[in-house]
Amino acid sequence: MKLATLKTSSRDGSLIVVSRNLKHAVDATAICPTLREALENWSTVEPQLRELSDRLNAGQASGAFAFDTQKVESPLPRTFQWCDGSAYLHHAELVRKARNADMPEQLYTDPMLYQGASDCFIGPRDPIRIADEKWGIDLEAEVAIVTDDVPMGVSVADAAKHIKLIMILNDVSLRNVMPGELAKGFGFFISKPSTAFSPVAVTPDELDAAWDGTKVCLPLVSHVNGKLLGRPNAGVDCYFDFPRLISHAATSRELRAGAIIGSGTVSNRDTSVGSACLQEQRMLEKLATGTMQTPLLQFGDEVRVEMFDAQGQSVFGAIDQKVEQYTYQPAQ
Amino acid sequence: MKLATLKTSSRDGSLIVVSRNLKHAVDATAICPTLREALENWSTVEPQLRELSDRLNAGQASGAFAFDTQKVESPLPRTFQWCDGSAYLHHAELVRKARNADMPEQLYTDPMLYQGASDCFIGPRDPIRIADEKWGIDLEAEVAIVTDDVPMGVSVADAAKHIKLIMILNDVSLRNVMPGELAKGFGFFISKPSTAFSPVAVTPDELDAAWDGTKVCLPLVSHVNGKLLGRPNAGVDCYFDFPRLISHAATSRELRAGAIIGSGTVSNRDTSVGSACLQEQRMLEKLATGTMQTPLLQFGDEVRVEMFDAQGQSVFGAIDQKVEQYTYQPAQ
Repeated sequence: MKLATLKTSSRDGSLIVVSRNLKHAVDATAICPTLREALENWSTVEPQLRELSDRLNAGQASGAFAFDTQKVESPLPRTFQWCDGSAYLHHAELVRKARNADMPEQLYTDPMLYQGASDCFIGPRDPIRIADEKWGIDLEAEVAIVTDDVPMGVSVADAAKHIKLIMILNDVSLRNVMPGELAKGFGFFISKPSTAFSPVAVTPDELDAAWDGTKVCLPLVSHVNGKLLGRPNAGVDCYFDFPRLISHAATSRELRAGAIIGSGTVSNRDTSVGSACLQEQRMLEKLATGTMQTPLLQFGDEVRVEMFDAQGQSVFGAIDQKVEQYTYQPAQ
Repeated sequence: MKLATLKTSSRDGSLIVVSRNLKHAVDATAICPTLREALENWSTVEPQLRELSDRLNAGQASGAFAFDTQKVESPLPRTFQWCDGSAYLHHAELVRKARNADMPEQLYTDPMLYQGASDCFIGPRDPIRIADEKWGIDLEAEVAIVTDDVPMGVSVADAAKHIKLIMILNDVSLRNVMPGELAKGFGFFISKPSTAFSPVAVTPDELDAAWDGTKVCLPLVSHVNGKLLGRPNAGVDCYFDFPRLISHAATSRELRAGAIIGSGTVSNRDTSVGSACLQEQRMLEKLATGTMQTPLLQFGDEVRVEMFDAQGQSVFGAIDQKVEQYTYQPAQ
């Protein structure tokens, strides 16, 4: 089942079911008005949504319309919990090297999560609006899962059953803001502007064998201005799978339905597959030639992130965003 | 105007208006079902709530009932954005000294915020449930404001007008988890369990002259097991007031209605007023005698945080919580 959220005047948008081939969609608000509320009542709502999805995929859903990724929000336009891991340690090694930061030994055994802000995600086709190019704008292509209610202290073994949906995302990052911010000791804040998620969120069964119950085993394909940046496989070199990240996130608190947990930037040790963020590519250039050649993102640049199944079909639709300059306008 | 949220089967509870003296309350769901939705529609909803509040304070609200702080959630049982400053640098100096961490010079000029988790706050009378006493359980008594929608890049001058409500809070902290977690470089996560806010949230006018437009100029009184821990004044030694924190938080992103921003632990350089967390008191003991004498919180301990106006009237009601052991029970 594939779900998405139409942009409306409401802050949570309105729930639609999308066909497996991403060509058609149908309004699902008669079952549940929003994806947020669907997740809060998943055991009741899911079977009804699946029935509608089956009808849509059979070409038998009345009121079906063409699915247009320009018209959707992130599947959850906002949620109450969004945190992001750093499960692909090859990424952590490279970006820390780029900012001359340590790579403590404990990172290889103890999962790392940063607490993200979740009040205003941007849509998969929305511009990335940044006030200053000098902040060092970068993409980070990742995979994320969405949970139902997770009890505090959940074991790794029990955590997997709380995974209800899967998405991909662009965790926009400000490379030149990070060193000063992290030096203060409280983690990221300004250096992580609003995040964009894929047009659709999918239930794990949509991935067939590419979902091994703990991670997505498919390449995540990123382009910048139409040029391939990389296609690292999210199933490779993943040190902490999603059940492990969920269990870690719930160590001292509950997670409530709609919680999104990201994998961190997907990164493979085989560097021939390329990268899922520019900073990694820049660091690889520096290691090879002594200088970073590829620039970070500039205003006007375009970023595209997508994942394809074994048959070459886009699973989540594409995140496709332009970087734009933002200027604050005081209210009159 | 004072607002609170009754515990119900719904995740956002139900909105009530509370009398100035905290003795009476009246259902406000005919105006707006929840405080979350009230903040999202503040310009429309606020005048109606004020009218109801005026009637309640005049003893003329039909259906008024006795206000019982046992029956309320935090005013926002959950919200989409909760971040917390460290505006009282005397606190930062002491707790960093206690964990042998640096106090970078930039902290005196550049506000610090950590991104908190906002999906499950606990109520003002709910137990603090922690799995392990050895994690080093502490209270942190603070002041917080709640905003309406704040545009990205808002100036300090424009930020003040986005402050709609004020609360106090207990930012429960796990002292012995922090050093290892912060060493990973991504800030707090496990070391900050669920936060508790005061029984009521108040509009700034309720504070009269004690609200100077940027901060609350009243002592914040904390007790542990009935013994005074301290009464530092939130208007004293505050390096970054709320408009400054809001402007900082909105540097690279919008803040959406219902965003809560905390001040950080209130702390005065005049140590005769005592502390708003145990770790500060312990560090002061260590500086004076060479050893920390006061223990951190143990299971069974009781914490009380309250703020009184110039007439000795409780402004927000008391946060009054017991520390309890939590054990994970797998679902059958």
